[in-house]
Formats: sequence, C-alpha cells, structure tokens
Amino acid sequence: MFDFAPKFPQRHHVRIRYSETDGMGIVYHGNYLTFFEVGRNEFLRAVGIDYRSLEEAGVVAAVTAAHVSYAAAARFDDLLTICTRLGEMAKLRFRFEYEIWREEDQTLVASGYTEHALLDRISLRPARLPERVRESMARLEAAARSFKERFLQP
Amino acid sequence: MFDFAPKFPQRHHVRIRYSETDGMGIVYHGNYLTFFEVGRNEFLRAVGIDYRSLEEAGVVAAVTAAHVSYAAAARFDDLLTICTRLGEMAKLRFRFEYEIWREEDQTLVASGYTEHALLDRISLRPARLPERVRESMARLEAAARSFKERFLQP
Amino acid sequence: MFDFAPKFPQRHHVRIRYSETDGMGIVYHGNYLTFFEVGRNEFLRAVGIDYRSLEEAGVVAAVTAAHVSYAAAARFDDLLTICTRLGEMAKLRFRFEYEIWREEDQTLVASGYTEHALLDRISLRPARLPERVRESMARLEAAARSFKERFLQP
Amino acid sequence: MFDFAPKFPQRHHVRIRYSETDGMGIVYHGNYLTFFEVGRNEFLRAVGIDYRSLEEAGVVAAVTAAHVSYAAAARFDDLLTICTRLGEMAKLRFRFEYEIWREEDQTLVASGYTEHALLDRISLRPARLPERVRESMARLEAAARSFKERFLQP
Repeated sequence: MFDFAPKFPQRHHVRIRYSETDGMGIVYHGNYLTFFEVGRNEFLRAVGIDYRSLEEAGVVAAVTAAHVSYAAAARFDDLLTICTRLGEMAKLRFRFEYEIWREEDQTLVASGYTEHALLDRISLRPARLPERVRESMARLEAAARSFKERFLQP
Repeated sequence: MFDFAPKFPQRHHVRIRYSETDGMGIVYHGNYLTFFEVGRNEFLRAVGIDYRSLEEAGVVAAVTAAHVSYAAAARFDDLLTICTRLGEMAKLRFRFEYEIWREEDQTLVASGYTEHALLDRISLRPARLPERVRESMARLEAAARSFKERFLQP
Repeated sequence: MFDFAPKFPQRHHVRIRYSETDGMGIVYHGNYLTFFEVGRNEFLRAVGIDYRSLEEAGVVAAVTAAHVSYAAAARFDDLLTICTRLGEMAKLRFRFEYEIWREEDQTLVASGYTEHALLDRISLRPARLPERVRESMARLEAAARSFKERFLQP
Repeated sequence: MFDFAPKFPQRHHVRIRYSETDGMGIVYHGNYLTFFEVGRNEFLRAVGIDYRSLEEAGVVAAVTAAHVSYAAAARFDDLLTICTRLGEMAKLRFRFEYEIWREEDQTLVASGYTEHALLDRISLRPARLPERVRESMARLEAAARSFKERFLQP
C-alpha cells in the first residue's frame, strides 16, 4: 500500500504514451509538467471547479514557477498515479504539489510543484475577479483548509 | 547536390531535439506535422506573409487534412531540411506539399501534404476575408503561379 | 447513440489536456497522431498483444504512412472517443483505421489511418519474426477476420 | 544590448512554433524544458562535446531535477534567445543554468536550471565512465573554470 494516501487524497491515473518517451527509452523529463497539469485539472474538477468556465469568465491561472525532482524512470505503457494537493494559497496566488507513483512496483517516479497567479485572460495582468471566480477560489480555500484539518493536524 | 532544388525552392533547416525522439530512438512520427508547420510558416514569411498578422485580422488557416509518408528514420541531432511548396489553391482553400531531407547523407526522410481552409478565428466557419488578407492571398497566388512558370513548364 | 458502433468495436476515451491545445484554442492538429497511437495500443491490448513485449522480442511496428482528415475542432477538457479497427493486413505490414468522436454532442472530430511495417528494432529493416511475434500476428489476423465476419458481411 | 552577455556567453535562437503555443495563446509552460534542452546541447557542441557520441559510448546525462521561473509570456513566431551556462559540477553530476530572452523587446521570458547525473545507458545506474567520456567531462570542467575566471572574478 502507498503511504502517501493521507497526504495526497486526490489521485488520477495516466498510461504512458509512446509519444511521451524519448531516445533513452524513458519518459521525456519535460512531460512531467503535463502530468502535473492533468493532476491539477482533475483536482479542480473534484472540488467542483471547471477550469474551462474560469477561462470563459475571463481569468487564467498562469504558471509562474514549476519544479520537478526525478526519482525513477518511467517507460512506455507504465500506469502512473498522479497525486495532487493544494499547497499555500494567497489572494490571487496558489501552489499545487504533486507526487507521481508507478502502480506496478509502488515506486516514486517524480515529485514537484507548480505556482500560479490568476490573471486577466487577455491582458495577462492581475485582474479583478468576477463573482463566479471568487466563489471558485473560496471553494478552493475551503478544500485546502479542510485538507489541512483532516490530515496535517497533530 | 539535392535534385529537388527546382521543385522546392523554399527550404528551412531544423535540428532534431531530444524531446522529438521516442523509445525507438528515432523521431516520433507525429512530429513531422510540426516540421511541416515550420516549413509552411517560413514559406509564408518568404513570400511576405506574416501568419501572426493574419490571425490579428481575425482569420486562421485551419488544417483540414494532413498526410505523411515516412521514408527513413531521423535521429537526435540530425540536421533536416524542410522543403515546402504551394500546391493547388482555390478561393479559401489551399494545399502545401513538403519533403524532408537529411543533409548529411542526402536521404529523403519524409514527404507529405497539408490542406487548409481560411476560417473566421472565433467562429471557425468560412468567413469574408478582410482586405489585408485578400492581399496576402493574392501574393500567395502570385508566388504559386510564378513557381509553376519557372519550374514546372516543359 | 453513435452509429459507428458495429464498424469500430474497439473504443477508448481521452480527455484533452491543456498542453494539447494551440493558439487557436483548439487541439493542435499534430496531436491526433498521438490519439491514433493510443487507440492502436489499446486495440492491441484488447486482442491480447502487449506492444512492449513485441519490442522486447526485438521487433518494432514502424509507421510508414499516416493520414488525418479533420472534421471538427476539439477543445480543452473535451472527452473524446477513439474508435480503432484493423484494416488490411499483409505479411509484415498492416493498417489501422480510426475515427475520433466527441461524446458530448456526438460529433465526428477526425478520422484517418496509419500504415505499419514490422522491422528489426536495431537495424530498422524487415526482419525474421521471432516465434512470440508470429503468434501475436496470428492473433491479430484472427481478430481482423472475426471482425469482418461479424460486421462487414451482408 | 542585453546585459546578461558576460554571464551567459553561450546563446542560441529558437523561433516559437504554433505547436508550442496553448489555448492561452502563449507558449505552453512545459515547453521551456525543451528550450533548456536545446540550449544545453548547443552549449555542449560549442565546447566540443557531441551528446550523441556520449550515448554511443554507453552513457546518458539523465535529468535529476528541473526548475523554471516564468517572467513573461512568449507567443507564436517570437524569436527567443536561450542563454546557457554551466553551474556547479561534481564527479558524475552537473548543473546547467538558463535564461530565455525575447529579442524584439529585450524582455526576460523565463529562467531556471536543470541538474544531471551521468548514468549507464542501459541500467540507468551510476557507471564507470569510458575514457572518451572522461575526456569530455574534463573539457566541460575546463570550460566551466575558464568561464568563472573570465566573468565571475572581482
């Protein structure tokens, strides 16, 4: 059994495509940022936020920083589990944290984080949030708070 | 010397990135559509059309069909030559044809074509062309005509 | 209900990632070759062939040609169905055919085919098939035959 | 004039492809790891190391960590300059640092680093270095030392 369960309640599976491998016969390291993206979107969906509707309301969650630590190689056809949780959150900024595990041999493949800022979709500058988006962010904050209370308290 | 020179006067070089290779140790077959895209944009630039300004005028050249024939494998760090020419052209539709050669051993790596339709950028439906775009298309037609006269006449 | 069911019994779902969209706000046309690849691998898995074990036996199924016809635009977060079937098959060559549909509004998004040749993994030349691979190909031929009998007879 | 010249003597240009943009109309954040890779390979070529020959000698430079800070959005057809330098170096480990600038308006687009370990190509474990690779690493160390002497001394 994975022991990261309590810390990363949100999980999603991806199967490695041939297009995602490189000449070393392993997953190209840049593709993990895409797997993080998949984990993040599924996290948002799970707490009731449709990222597409955020954009339709004129707001994007631009990536301001990204970090990946590579622990083991993944290969074509591997079934990976993307574990996602919300880290710190400030007004218009938030951070997601990730671990990627291989099911078959319960190996940590990669971990990392992405940092985001809510920006106006057209100007790409910090913007007033429409009501709809404010509600989404409140829902996100509640999810983060509830997560901390449940899992990170002594 | 390559003998395709007269038929494909427009050429552009790309060096294969590690990210473009796959687990077979060769370029992933899907990436050739990106190389065709690079050749097409450089072709347009050469005849004085900035694709970005086309989009700013509210028009996109959507791809309606694409075909690739793979002749030889390309590998990491290979220097490839993308040869591009304009095929048939009708009112709002046109077709580009491509050959991709490896410099080092003068080997044909892939050939193919893409077909395009000019669409309204927002609705993605056939649209009236702004004056600026009409001029671009006329320039493109002139390029195609001049090409045929120079290279394809007996 | 989709009416392509009888012709394409093998189906697999993919959800569009943000990384797969382009500046038009739609799926980049080159990515459909990756979706075809996903459909193909799931087809093989369904008839009992693990592509990875094929490669371990020293054989690759190189792509020799690919064609895509684009019928409608797909967007971020769309849930698409990849329908795959085996087309013609000769000794060391075979062809897969695909349709990609959007679940939500039952729209055909793209269709096409890929052609393949079984090659030696190192030399990338036609090669004698190991016994294990022969069995796989026989299983594939049986699948194709059974499919034709069930669905394409009058 | 860019003022990063002395700190990042190695530069290489890339033009943004349509395939590299995403639905926000900007370069997908994951692609910067590919641009870092391009900068790294050109850096190695400039100091006389052909990465391909490293692999032929049975050694790969696996990525063990990667970090990107995003400073500004880049768009389709932008001409970017990848500035690369060697950071710290230990026995079988080294680190590259990068800045990516947009030529047109002299804007910093992104910066970051990648960390690498030399591994056996097959086992992906730390390995004895063949003589050829030892020479390459010595050349790399000399390049790093000479760089520090020239640019980072008081």
